[in-house]
Amino acid sequence: MEPLRKISLSEKFASFDDCWSPKTLATVGDYAVKAVKVEGAFVWHNHADDDELFYILRGTISMHYRFCDAENVERFTAGELLRVPRGMEPRPVADDGTEILIFERETVLNTGTVVDEAFTKTAVRI
Amino acid sequence: MEPLRKISLSEKFASFDDCWSPKTLATVGDYAVKAVKVEGAFVWHNHADDDELFYILRGTISMHYRFCDAENVERFTAGELLRVPRGMEPRPVADDGTEILIFERETVLNTGTVVDEAFTKTAVRI
Repeated sequence: MEPLRKISLSEKFASFDDCWSPKTLATVGDYAVKAVKVEGAFVWHNHADDDELFYILRGTISMHYRFCDAENVERFTAGELLRVPRGMEPRPVADDGTEILIFERETVLNTGTVVDEAFTKTAVRI
Repeated sequence: MEPLRKISLSEKFASFDDCWSPKTLATVGDYAVKAVKVEGAFVWHNHADDDELFYILRGTISMHYRFCDAENVERFTAGELLRVPRGMEPRPVADDGTEILIFERETVLNTGTVVDEAFTKTAVRI
């Protein structure tokens, strides 16, 4: 059997610097908790088959999204959970120093079903 | 399509008082993020088929568990993630005022495959 595991979020966040590139901290079945640093604007993307949950640990994120043929924006800050349902087109824009936990299937790409040479990343385990 | 959802953890934790009874805050596929308040000792139990992840928001929890024929205990505090692999037998004991986020399949019971009339609860959505 696998052992009990303790994961310090402050140690994990101190271990990397790149933004918009989620790192898998731990898995439950085929789902994962991922750590990500975000700053500035990300690309418009789409997770066609996957709901996503974000827990804002530090900072603030403005989530631009398309819904009912309109473009909207909503702001989220530390201590809030944000659920993006499958199929929604989001574009997050974050303040400097924002840190987030993501809960989603481990194999989900950061840009979902959109491939963007500059931004698309596979989550690595740290 | 479902809308974007914002969930304030402080509002959700202020909305209930009972301990050891996880409440579903949001789902991703058939997994969920659940809020739970814990104090004192829980029962020995077992999640035979499910890994579980706990993120300690406030307080401290001592996780007693059986592993390799020995009984062990490890202490976890705010800012730490704790992964209990499927099949491990845990018994958590928490300081007063401890608040935790759980990430696991939505249908998992708090006592796993053990049924205890005083403790077993199904997660309700809040």
